Amino acid sequence: MLHFDTDYMEGAHPQVMRRLFETNLEQTPGYGTDAYTAHAKELIRQACGQPDAAVHFLVGGTQTNATVIDALLRHHEGVLAAETAHINVHESGAIEATGHKVLTLPSHDGKVQADEVETYIRQFYRDDTYEHMVAPGMLYISHPTEYGTLYTLSELEALSRVCCEANIPLYMDGARLGYGLAAEGTDVTLPDIARLCDVFYIGGTKVGALFGEAVVSAKPSRLPHFFPLIKQHGALLAKGRLLGVQFETLFTDGLYFHIGAHAVRLAMKLKQAFVAKGYRLHLDSPTNQQFVCLPNDTLDRLARHATFELWGPRGEWESVVRFVTSWATREEDIDKLIELL
Amino acid sequence: MLHFDTDYMEGAHPQVMRRLFETNLEQTPGYGTDAYTAHAKELIRQACGQPDAAVHFLVGGTQTNATVIDALLRHHEGVLAAETAHINVHESGAIEATGHKVLTLPSHDGKVQADEVETYIRQFYRDDTYEHMVAPGMLYISHPTEYGTLYTLSELEALSRVCCEANIPLYMDGARLGYGLAAEGTDVTLPDIARLCDVFYIGGTKVGALFGEAVVSAKPSRLPHFFPLIKQHGALLAKGRLLGVQFETLFTDGLYFHIGAHAVRLAMKLKQAFVAKGYRLHLDSPTNQQFVCLPNDTLDRLARHATFELWGPRGEWESVVRFVTSWATREEDIDKLIELL
Amino acid sequence: MLHFDTDYMEGAHPQVMRRLFETNLEQTPGYGTDAYTAHAKELIRQACGQPDAAVHFLVGGTQTNATVIDALLRHHEGVLAAETAHINVHESGAIEATGHKVLTLPSHDGKVQADEVETYIRQFYRDDTYEHMVAPGMLYISHPTEYGTLYTLSELEALSRVCCEANIPLYMDGARLGYGLAAEGTDVTLPDIARLCDVFYIGGTKVGALFGEAVVSAKPSRLPHFFPLIKQHGALLAKGRLLGVQFETLFTDGLYFHIGAHAVRLAMKLKQAFVAKGYRLHLDSPTNQQFVCLPNDTLDRLARHATFELWGPRGEWESVVRFVTSWATREEDIDKLIELL
Amino acid sequence: MLHFDTDYMEGAHPQVMRRLFETNLEQTPGYGTDAYTAHAKELIRQACGQPDAAVHFLVGGTQTNATVIDALLRHHEGVLAAETAHINVHESGAIEATGHKVLTLPSHDGKVQADEVETYIRQFYRDDTYEHMVAPGMLYISHPTEYGTLYTLSELEALSRVCCEANIPLYMDGARLGYGLAAEGTDVTLPDIARLCDVFYIGGTKVGALFGEAVVSAKPSRLPHFFPLIKQHGALLAKGRLLGVQFETLFTDGLYFHIGAHAVRLAMKLKQAFVAKGYRLHLDSPTNQQFVCLPNDTLDRLARHATFELWGPRGEWESVVRFVTSWATREEDIDKLIELL
Repeated sequence: MLHFDTDYMEGAHPQVMRRLFETNLEQTPGYGTDAYTAHAKELIRQACGQPDAAVHFLVGGTQTNATVIDALLRHHEGVLAAETAHINVHESGAIEATGHKVLTLPSHDGKVQADEVETYIRQFYRDDTYEHMVAPGMLYISHPTEYGTLYTLSELEALSRVCCEANIPLYMDGARLGYGLAAEGTDVTLPDIARLCDVFYIGGTKVGALFGEAVVSAKPSRLPHFFPLIKQHGALLAKGRLLGVQFETLFTDGLYFHIGAHAVRLAMKLKQAFVAKGYRLHLDSPTNQQFVCLPNDTLDRLARHATFELWGPRGEWESVVRFVTSWATREEDIDKLIELL
Repeated sequence: MLHFDTDYMEGAHPQVMRRLFETNLEQTPGYGTDAYTAHAKELIRQACGQPDAAVHFLVGGTQTNATVIDALLRHHEGVLAAETAHINVHESGAIEATGHKVLTLPSHDGKVQADEVETYIRQFYRDDTYEHMVAPGMLYISHPTEYGTLYTLSELEALSRVCCEANIPLYMDGARLGYGLAAEGTDVTLPDIARLCDVFYIGGTKVGALFGEAVVSAKPSRLPHFFPLIKQHGALLAKGRLLGVQFETLFTDGLYFHIGAHAVRLAMKLKQAFVAKGYRLHLDSPTNQQFVCLPNDTLDRLARHATFELWGPRGEWESVVRFVTSWATREEDIDKLIELL
Repeated sequence: MLHFDTDYMEGAHPQVMRRLFETNLEQTPGYGTDAYTAHAKELIRQACGQPDAAVHFLVGGTQTNATVIDALLRHHEGVLAAETAHINVHESGAIEATGHKVLTLPSHDGKVQADEVETYIRQFYRDDTYEHMVAPGMLYISHPTEYGTLYTLSELEALSRVCCEANIPLYMDGARLGYGLAAEGTDVTLPDIARLCDVFYIGGTKVGALFGEAVVSAKPSRLPHFFPLIKQHGALLAKGRLLGVQFETLFTDGLYFHIGAHAVRLAMKLKQAFVAKGYRLHLDSPTNQQFVCLPNDTLDRLARHATFELWGPRGEWESVVRFVTSWATREEDIDKLIELL
Repeated sequence: MLHFDTDYMEGAHPQVMRRLFETNLEQTPGYGTDAYTAHAKELIRQACGQPDAAVHFLVGGTQTNATVIDALLRHHEGVLAAETAHINVHESGAIEATGHKVLTLPSHDGKVQADEVETYIRQFYRDDTYEHMVAPGMLYISHPTEYGTLYTLSELEALSRVCCEANIPLYMDGARLGYGLAAEGTDVTLPDIARLCDVFYIGGTKVGALFGEAVVSAKPSRLPHFFPLIKQHGALLAKGRLLGVQFETLFTDGLYFHIGAHAVRLAMKLKQAFVAKGYRLHLDSPTNQQFVCLPNDTLDRLARHATFELWGPRGEWESVVRFVTSWATREEDIDKLIELL
């Protein structure tokens, strides 16, 4: 059986695992006050081109989103996000549980458009009753999005400009950031993101780590008193050095980027095979998630040899399915899948 | 200057005011443990045809919605409501502040449709990832809606059936209930509402009281431990008997219904005048809020003599405006307004 | 039967009631945007000697405390308060419901001591693990306290200094402020309070109004975006002018102060009678609440003619009881009570 | 340098680490739906003697406490706990952040007494104003406590009885449970705990795992809809099998108990050495945390060779310090420390 369900089906990249093993019996103080964590932060600052950036390590994506959004919003504010945003759909109301509304914008294959953000904010403050409404207090984007799509540099600059003019922070959920940075044709680099987003996170869980997300802010003042907030959200790992060791490994010798490149290369190979065999793409994703329309009989035949996700409800004749590659995907498995098509 | 902005521009109906005056120096225990409150509850139970109903008095609409919804939902649940629902738009995120998501349904002139509620719930539980999503834990409707429209009895029965089958409570926001019960052609009575809704409130603020809303549940077990929750939400009035005295008055000799009938009659007179003079209705409301499309020059001319609300943004040639009548509207003011058209 | 249970057993002071009656049919815009509210704010600013103060009107005490404390605290902070503070004991967890811990200090007849506040804060930041603990983010005091006691000016100055040095706001709950300002021997004036507290509220509910509390801050920047927060907390009255009219009346011709003086004079008369007849005071309150130790047989005898509150559990031989006077207390009732002793 | 600061200074027990390594490249579905997790749950059910128990794996202690307490309490309720409880002191207000008050009881070396719990509850419901107060909705205990102390079986039975009579759940924080079960002279077994507590957790982070806590409830109906609540609290690990693999290893061949026994044996050796050399114990802990009073010059001398925690403020002549052993403590290090005394 071949598995393409998600990018979190295995443990950690072997190099990460090896480092956890090597350092296992060392004794370090807890809660991220150790030297591995300090070094990992330094490596991330360098990779971001932001020598003064604040870097915080948390365990998982939902808790990272909830903690950061709670930190950035004032009580009367909500977070703008695409209707399809993970925080709006798949986090069991974690944002609302911290007291904040998700204010939805149209999704364009998972992305929001700068002009629509601008219009939303402008119209909001024109409404006579706006003080009875939830004020847009920040913008959440994901990159890659939940649909594998990417912002271009000019799109990201436009979003940054709109947020800056509205004086609200721009926050990027980078759960799959490694796969976005490695995409063919992307003109967005990690330093671009660090420069244009007020806060973002570099996803580890789906990109080579056992778990872990690195929250980065070039302007540390954007996240004052963040440590007790991490603790309050239950997001503080006692053995914080586990996060330090993992991110140190990922940001040594470009491992994070190699991981991204590997997964994207195999995803592109798969996409091209789909296209070559005449299947219709549901949308054109340049990253490690591929969405394709399969006739139901093909789907059922494939399902005997491979696992993958049905994306949305099963259609009458054909259905959209998602195939995901990761750092752990083996080329031979992709080749076998292509053969099966 | 004539005023048709809202239905809360005056104080209380003179009879209510008189009773407050008469009882002003009486001494009663606080927090609704007095005899006026007990009597008012009894009168409401009778009017609802539910001798065992729980009745609770709160001060205002937003706090009532937040307290009831918080009481009815479990932690992982959200409240289904029309996109246009007051709780989704105009309560400054009060629902989210209690930790719950508002799950939106299409609005049909402010109403939700039973089949769409049913489909939402059915699809929700078919989704493989539903445990990562916010479960629909109750249905919120308003009657009249924010657009002055009303459910028919069969629509209400259908909603009740859908909720019952899904095992979620149906809650009605009756901020303007008096104006709905008095509408021409409505086949929905107060006993119908008390029978079909798990919880609802009878609005006082907009229907003759200085302030106050009466939460009713034919099944008291639906709202266990509601008293401390009212207190926790800051919705417990120290001098609770003020609410008792007001609702006692409103439910004596049918005052609540007379108030509704008065406002609706004048609203219908106004509507007919609009139609007779060739203006287009934005929608056909049978209650005390009338929405009409006015050419901008007419609008500007009227605005020199009367106040009313612009509904949505000003259009290029014409705009939608809202005129509201209430228990306090004088027929001569309606006549003057009609003359001005 | 004579009633001395609480200071909220009647409606409003007759002059307040009269003004509500006189203005009842006037039409004003909602939510406190009317002229009565503007005038009331101006009168309060004058009485406080703070021409630029922000003034906001809310409905009741618990909601005022919850809204202000929520506004003043950051997410990781709690509110320092005496163990006996209303917010710690009698608000059904309203403060915790907004996500904040009440950090308790010893109560000295309801008061906190500046040196103990200072020590708490100093020790907190000396603790190596303080980032895992709830930071003291503000100080809550009540004046008069729940025990009727008062801070002296020098005590209040010391608290203000400690808070200022710790860079945390000082907030005063003035539910019974009128009775404190009128106390014999107090050297604390309203301008002192307005100068020394970052935020405080002038209680109306217990001092002549039907309901209503006036939040005052000499530094408006202390309460940014307070309007939507009031709404979110369900504390925004639709007919906001009801609050405006009431506070306008209370702050015209010194009514608020006359009310306080009346209640305090009668409370002192009662206290002196207790002392003269040999009863032991539980504590020496200079305001409208009197706490006295009564032998149980005296207590039972009195209870046949008067209502009052048992303060704490009934003792074996004697018990502490509370007698409360208010603007509405009649001298003849005090005389009758004294006769009964 | 020798380190006795905490029991989370190393990674995982070598056997746990080995299993994570061996299974690293296996592909499993996410969120705990894998076979390792199922097997680990089964092993824990067996160890608890509760074949129908619900078992849930979370990542860390604070998030586990917050999630369980949020699940068990109704809105108007708080959690009873010793003043010294971790949830009251060292979780950055995580419990209050979910809206609930911590109701404190006196601490007897970290423990609560059944009679004091009973008295609290009895007096609470006798208070006329109890509906304005936070109701005691559950009891939190830790075992071992934050002071290393343990409940006896009869104490635990008494607490269980009191809770049962009051109809509130008993919840045990077992962050260091392995060290409690292995203590000399304890008469409390894991099946006792599973039988007497409504919900408890078996700590992994401090007892051999990299991270992870296993929530157990013999009555699954105590934690309905717990999965989405775990997700909402950000406590759901994407690669859930990491928790499954770790707890499977810990509950195979008694590893969890061997780990406990090792740490306790070394702690006892250390304690006896302290006593033999004439040092005064701050309290008599039978588990892996030892609290001893050291003259300040001894403390300073030791601090040049070993790390340990100052417990509370440094005294004038002597101070209390804490030494902690764990699964990872080496006997030779204990011997070296003893020599240094």
